[in-house]
Amino acid sequence: MDKAQIGVTGLAVMGRNLARNFARHGHTVAVHNRTTAKTTALVEEFGDEGTFVPAETAEGFVAALERPRRLVIMVKAGAATDAVIEEFAPLLEPGDMIVDGGNAHFADTRRREAALRERGIHFVGTGISGGEEGALHGPSIMPGGSAESYETLGPLLEDIAAKVDGVPCATHVGPDGAGHFVKMVHNGIEYADMQLIAEAYDLLRHAAGLTPAEIAEVFRTWNTGRLESYLIEITAEVLAHTDPVTGRPFVDVVLDRAEQKGTGRWTVQTALDLGVPVNGIAEAVFARSVSGHADQRAAARALPGPARRADRGADFADLVEQALYASKIVAYAQGFHEIQAGSAEYGWDIDPGAMARIWRGGCIIRARFLDRITDAYRADPGLATLLTDEHFATALGAAQDAWREVVATAVRLGVPTPGFAGALAYYDSLRAERLPAALTQGQRDFFGAHTYHRADRAGTFHTLWGGDRTEVEV
Amino acid sequence: MDKAQIGVTGLAVMGRNLARNFARHGHTVAVHNRTTAKTTALVEEFGDEGTFVPAETAEGFVAALERPRRLVIMVKAGAATDAVIEEFAPLLEPGDMIVDGGNAHFADTRRREAALRERGIHFVGTGISGGEEGALHGPSIMPGGSAESYETLGPLLEDIAAKVDGVPCATHVGPDGAGHFVKMVHNGIEYADMQLIAEAYDLLRHAAGLTPAEIAEVFRTWNTGRLESYLIEITAEVLAHTDPVTGRPFVDVVLDRAEQKGTGRWTVQTALDLGVPVNGIAEAVFARSVSGHADQRAAARALPGPARRADRGADFADLVEQALYASKIVAYAQGFHEIQAGSAEYGWDIDPGAMARIWRGGCIIRARFLDRITDAYRADPGLATLLTDEHFATALGAAQDAWREVVATAVRLGVPTPGFAGALAYYDSLRAERLPAALTQGQRDFFGAHTYHRADRAGTFHTLWGGDRTEVEV
Repeated sequence: MDKAQIGVTGLAVMGRNLARNFARHGHTVAVHNRTTAKTTALVEEFGDEGTFVPAETAEGFVAALERPRRLVIMVKAGAATDAVIEEFAPLLEPGDMIVDGGNAHFADTRRREAALRERGIHFVGTGISGGEEGALHGPSIMPGGSAESYETLGPLLEDIAAKVDGVPCATHVGPDGAGHFVKMVHNGIEYADMQLIAEAYDLLRHAAGLTPAEIAEVFRTWNTGRLESYLIEITAEVLAHTDPVTGRPFVDVVLDRAEQKGTGRWTVQTALDLGVPVNGIAEAVFARSVSGHADQRAAARALPGPARRADRGADFADLVEQALYASKIVAYAQGFHEIQAGSAEYGWDIDPGAMARIWRGGCIIRARFLDRITDAYRADPGLATLLTDEHFATALGAAQDAWREVVATAVRLGVPTPGFAGALAYYDSLRAERLPAALTQGQRDFFGAHTYHRADRAGTFHTLWGGDRTEVEV
Repeated sequence: MDKAQIGVTGLAVMGRNLARNFARHGHTVAVHNRTTAKTTALVEEFGDEGTFVPAETAEGFVAALERPRRLVIMVKAGAATDAVIEEFAPLLEPGDMIVDGGNAHFADTRRREAALRERGIHFVGTGISGGEEGALHGPSIMPGGSAESYETLGPLLEDIAAKVDGVPCATHVGPDGAGHFVKMVHNGIEYADMQLIAEAYDLLRHAAGLTPAEIAEVFRTWNTGRLESYLIEITAEVLAHTDPVTGRPFVDVVLDRAEQKGTGRWTVQTALDLGVPVNGIAEAVFARSVSGHADQRAAARALPGPARRADRGADFADLVEQALYASKIVAYAQGFHEIQAGSAEYGWDIDPGAMARIWRGGCIIRARFLDRITDAYRADPGLATLLTDEHFATALGAAQDAWREVVATAVRLGVPTPGFAGALAYYDSLRAERLPAALTQGQRDFFGAHTYHRADRAGTFHTLWGGDRTEVEV
C-alpha cells in the first residue's frame, strides 16, 4: 500500500471533515482516533471520497505516513494537545512535522514549538477557521511554524483551503505561534463584527421600529453593498427565520444570553499586554458577558430609562449602515494593530495584507471589505493605522455625521451600543489634537511623583506639589 | 537592646516611609537594605522619630525581630520579591511571617503563600495604597494571608493605617492573594475614576468653553458635594496651576501621553478570566494606551471631525457633574462585581462593604462616596449589583437624562468620552428587557452549531440551518 501524504488524528467532526477534504483533493490520508470506532465509521461512511489508510495504533498511524511525516492533530486545545504530542513525538524522526489544528493559545504553541524544535521536529500551530463546513469544503488556514515546514506542508494546505479568485486562503503566517496568534485576532475581530451587527439590529428594531422580517430585508440589501459578508448574509437568514414551535420570529424566542469560548477574551488580554487599544473587541466580549449575568439583569430591569419609543423612520437604516461600516473599520484597524504589535514583539514579520487576503474565504469574517485592507497595506506597507488609508479615511469622513447621529439616538433612546460608541470614541481619541491624558499625567505626578514630559521641550519633569510648586527636571 | 516588633527590608521611599510610620507609632523597627547606605541614611536622618534597629546582614535583621517575626519586604514586584523571600525564608522559623507590601500580582502571591505555608511560614501579600505620603502618614492597607497571621500583625497595621472617624483603614481582606487582588481592583477603579475626571475636564473645556482656571473652580465646587474625593480635590489643584516656565496653564504644557504601570491592565485581564464585564475600567486603560501611540495619532490628526465649537454654556457643568457621578457609580459597581467574583472563585469570603470602608482614607480613591457603598452592602449583603442599591438607583435615575445629554453632546462635538459612553452603555445593557445577544446566539448556531437556549422553555437546541430549518433538542 502507498504511504499517506498526510495523517489526521482526532476524528471528531473537525478532524473528520479535514481528513475528507484532503482525501477529496486526491491525497492519501492516514486516519487515527483514540477510540477506533470513529476511524472505522469514517472509512465506512466516506471511504469512497478518496484514499484513507485507517490505523488502530499510534505506531501504525506513524508507519503509514511518507517522510517527512505530516501529522495533523485535531484534539481539544489544552492538556489533550500536550498528551497527543507526547504520544506521537517519540515515534517521529527529525524533519517530521506535527500540525496542531486546534484553537491553542499562541503562548502554548510557542512553548510546544520550542520543545519540539529541540527534538528536531517541526511543530506547526495552525489556525483553521470556518467551522465544520469550512473544514470540509475549504477553510481559511493560518499556519505558523518554520518556513521549512511550509515548503512541504504548504501545498497540501493550499489545496484544501478556500479559494477566492483562484487564490488559496492559506499562507505561511510566520514562525512558531504566529498562526495561532493571527487566528486569535481573527476571532476577536469576529466578536466585534458580531456585536456591531447586533447593535445595528437592535437599533433598527427599537429606534426605527422595524420587525425582524423587515430588518432581514435591510441586511439583505446591505449584503449587496460594501458590507457584503458572510456574517451580514447569515444575519438576514437568522432574522428571517420563524420559530416553528411558536410561529414567532426566531430571534425573539432565543434566550438573549451570548456564550463564548475564550479566543475573544484572549485577544483582549493579549492586546493589553502589548499596549494595543482594542476597545471595539473588548466591548464585544463584555457585551456577551453582561448578557450572561442573569441575576444582575433581573435586579437591574427596574432601573429607570427613557421610554423606548421608536421615533425614527425606516430611512434611519441608511444612517445605521454608515455607523456600522465606520465602526467595522475601527474594529479591523484595532485587530490589525494588534497583529502588527504581536509581530514586532515576537519577531514574526507578518504581512498584514496577506492576512486580509487569506480571510476572504472559508472563515467567518469573510467579506468583500477585506480586499480593501489588502490594498491598503499594498499601497503603504508602513501604514500606521488602517483608519488613515485613503479609502478608509474617505469612508470614515463621509460616515461620521451619520455615525454621530446614530450613537446620539441610541443614547437618547436607551438602546445600548457599546460597540458603536466605543468605536466612535476611539476615532475621536485618535484624531484629537490634544487629549486630557495631560491632566491624567498631572494627577499622577501630584499623588505619586510619577513625573511627566512636556509638550514644548525634552526631558522628564516633576512639580513639587507639596512644596513651592516649582518644576524640577529629574 | 529590645527586640523589634516589626522589620522592614527594602528602604526605597515606600519602605523607608513605612518604617518611619511604624516607629512614629512607638514600635521598635528593624531596618535593612541590600546596600547598607540606605539603612544608615534612614537612621541618621529620621532616627529621632522613634526606635530603629539597623541591620547590615539578613541574619542580623532576622535576629533583631521578636517572635513570631514580622518581616515586611518592600521591593520591586516580580523576581526581586522571590529573591528576597529566598534570602530570608531559610532564616525564619514556623509561625514567622513575611509581609509583601509590593504591588504583586495576586496569582504570584497565591503561589508564594502556598510555597511558604509548606514551610510553616505565613506569607501575607498586602496591598498598600497612598503612595509615599500615605506610607508615612497613614495608608490604606489590604492584607491577605491567614487569619492567624492577622491576629498579631493586624494591630500594627491598624496602628499605622489612615483613620477615618477613628476607624483604621486596614482589615483582613481574606486568605492568600485576596489582599493583592483587592488592591489590584482598587487601582483599576482608580484608572476609571481618573479617566472619567479627564473626560469631564475635556467636556468643560471643549463643549462649555471654560478655561483651566474656571474648570478648577468647577471641580472645587464639586468637591463640596457628593463627588467630594481626593482625586477631585487634586484635579482642581492641577488645573489651577500655572506653568512657571511659560506662564500658560500647566495642563496645556504637559505632554498628553498617559503612562501606566500595569495594575489597571491586570484588573481587566483578570475580569475577563472571571467573566466580569468591566468596560469602564477597560476604556480607561485603553484611553491611556491610545494617548501613547504618537505615530498613529500623528497620522490620524487629519481625519475629519465636526468643528469643535464650544456651544454649551457654563451651566453645562451641572449636567457633566451628573454624568460623572452616574459613570462613577457604574465603574465602582463593576469593580465590586470583580471583587465578589474573585472572592467566589478563590474562596476568599471577602466582605465588600469592608473594602469600601478601608478605602475611605489613605488611598487615592478615598471619597465620601465610599460610605454609601459600605451602607449598600450593610443594607443588603446579597446585593446583585451596586446599581440597584436604593441610593444609587435613585441617583442614576435622577442623573440619566443629563448623562444622556452629555454623551450625546460629546458625540456631536467629537469630544472622546469612552468612559462616560461605555458606562452608559453598560447601564442600558444591564437594564434592557431583551438584549440582541439572542441574535448573536442565533448566528453562532448558524455558523458553528454552537446551540442555543430558548426563552420559553428549558433545554439546549439547534436549528438545522443547512437543512429544513427544523429545531432539534440536543
